[in-house]
Amino acid sequence: MLNFTVGPVMSSEFVRHIGSEQVPYFRTPEFSEVMKENEFLVKRFAKASENARVVFLTGSGTASMEASIMNVFTKEDHVLVVNGGSFGHRFVQICQIHDIPYTEIIPEFGHDITDEQLSEFEGKGYTGFVVNLDETSTGVLYDIKRISDFCNKNGLFLVVDSISSFLCDPFDMEALGVGVMISGSQKALACPPGISLIVLSEKALERVNKNTVQSLYFDLKDALLNGERGQTPFTPAVGILLQINARLKEIEAAGGVDAENRRIGALAEDFRKKIAGLPFEIVSNSLPNAVTPLHPTTASAYDIFTILKDEYGIWICPNGGDLREKVFRVGHIGDLCEDDNTQLVNALKDIQKRGII
Amino acid sequence: MLNFTVGPVMSSEFVRHIGSEQVPYFRTPEFSEVMKENEFLVKRFAKASENARVVFLTGSGTASMEASIMNVFTKEDHVLVVNGGSFGHRFVQICQIHDIPYTEIIPEFGHDITDEQLSEFEGKGYTGFVVNLDETSTGVLYDIKRISDFCNKNGLFLVVDSISSFLCDPFDMEALGVGVMISGSQKALACPPGISLIVLSEKALERVNKNTVQSLYFDLKDALLNGERGQTPFTPAVGILLQINARLKEIEAAGGVDAENRRIGALAEDFRKKIAGLPFEIVSNSLPNAVTPLHPTTASAYDIFTILKDEYGIWICPNGGDLREKVFRVGHIGDLCEDDNTQLVNALKDIQKRGII
Repeated sequence: MLNFTVGPVMSSEFVRHIGSEQVPYFRTPEFSEVMKENEFLVKRFAKASENARVVFLTGSGTASMEASIMNVFTKEDHVLVVNGGSFGHRFVQICQIHDIPYTEIIPEFGHDITDEQLSEFEGKGYTGFVVNLDETSTGVLYDIKRISDFCNKNGLFLVVDSISSFLCDPFDMEALGVGVMISGSQKALACPPGISLIVLSEKALERVNKNTVQSLYFDLKDALLNGERGQTPFTPAVGILLQINARLKEIEAAGGVDAENRRIGALAEDFRKKIAGLPFEIVSNSLPNAVTPLHPTTASAYDIFTILKDEYGIWICPNGGDLREKVFRVGHIGDLCEDDNTQLVNALKDIQKRGII
Repeated sequence: MLNFTVGPVMSSEFVRHIGSEQVPYFRTPEFSEVMKENEFLVKRFAKASENARVVFLTGSGTASMEASIMNVFTKEDHVLVVNGGSFGHRFVQICQIHDIPYTEIIPEFGHDITDEQLSEFEGKGYTGFVVNLDETSTGVLYDIKRISDFCNKNGLFLVVDSISSFLCDPFDMEALGVGVMISGSQKALACPPGISLIVLSEKALERVNKNTVQSLYFDLKDALLNGERGQTPFTPAVGILLQINARLKEIEAAGGVDAENRRIGALAEDFRKKIAGLPFEIVSNSLPNAVTPLHPTTASAYDIFTILKDEYGIWICPNGGDLREKVFRVGHIGDLCEDDNTQLVNALKDIQKRGII
């Protein structure tokens, strides 16, 4: 199967080879070295400050979203949450569950938030800002410079879910003054799902250390303490952490994060050019590099997903809920190349020939 | 490396082969079928009732320990926690963090709890009982029949951490009246770490559905609802779930859980016979099948771990904290055979010849 979803995505042969090996025992200096290197390279690729730290959590991206909110905010905060789709909605749920006072900013469907929208919230005592940089459910990349300027001007602590934008879109954690950046193993890191990660700035570390969280598993203080010696409080997904290590070094050897941004950007551009003439509308006005969201004007989006899966051996990414029939998404992350784009576009053209779209 | 730790353990070639394959997209009927089969076989091997359910959580065993306590107990409960080592202590911490009233039962080091100890707590209004069936840190298997009789007689809701005893020691969830059974992917399931699982009896499901937990990730109601269609609320460790599926079918084909209990038991017995004459004392009076805890009488336990790792290519399982120098453990789970036992014992005899032990 050729996989154009937004995760799990295809992994390189080298990463998959590690998956075929025995998982080593991990309470060893050898594994601690791997973890230290993982922390170093993630910080480098996030362009985090020297004193930033990284926590690798065994769990879905949502585990790290929840752990971040629990550890850096309290009932004394009042945060702005950009709710532009199902992942923004997830942050709203997390704030509700943990009694973190919040106010939603709801962008127009398929659009970035505007300066006008932000200006409404200026000088009103908000203390935090939470955003999914690439709202993957609708394929909208928010302008991180605009958000960062707003937060810096108003003294807001900024939490950025970069789960599907890390390594894809330009991002400089230190220059932007971002407090927390979240990502996951199964997006552009192109490893199997099971690990999510949290990069914490110095300011974030202060917040974490002052806070008391009602959780053992999500207590980042404990994770940070163990991380000082390259370990985790509980048995982590050791195999995936070794795969992440291999993949981070692959990216470094191929020119680092900027080169990886360009590679994914070029792949997205290639696909967007090749679909010209097909009965699809791009539904986002602010496209990320990781994904292209498409509305088929002549057929059900979910039917196209099923036909590609069952008859062409290709996975694209269906949407859920209200968008199920209206929108599908094509990912540009993982071990994909321009020839793969051609194969997908040829399959879509064949479906068009058959009169289905 | 030959791996005698208690996790991660060695996996069969078939399970590892799956680790070398691309991880498939999972929001599909195909993956739902796999999950349904996983639930069916785990229930069969736990000997759970027909209406029991299984939740597969992406996380360490501790994630499922915490999720279980959060979902089945409230501040209105008062639970007894057997604290016989670091995993018992972990349940104590979880009860503290979540304000679940608890009382500790502390067994003598290396010993099972006694009827006498239990009788102290009879008819005193306790509502729950929490135990690590195999307290892996010290290699003590508690008598589940004794505990179950006590709980049934006194109407206590019983939560059993079977993380390292599932598939190893005889266990009949329905007959014993166990409310919740917890396990993990990297113990006798012999898959990579990253998935833990919770089997919930009908009574447990009632408790979960009545309860409101302050967590999105650990909300079992949501997991159960998604599980009805073979799905999870968030992206799970898909690759490991496929490996679990293969492994469960391997066990079924080899005669099921009883045959697997016998196989692991025979391997443990073989090892325990072969170490006769070596300067080791077995520190547990109630041995589980999964592990043999040993106190070397002539050398540091941690030094033996390091020498075996660096000079013989063998991992045994070191202890942490106070027991670091005093106790190491030898696991009998994972893809091991009697020849592997011989290899380890020969290495230990060689270390003895060299005058180190």
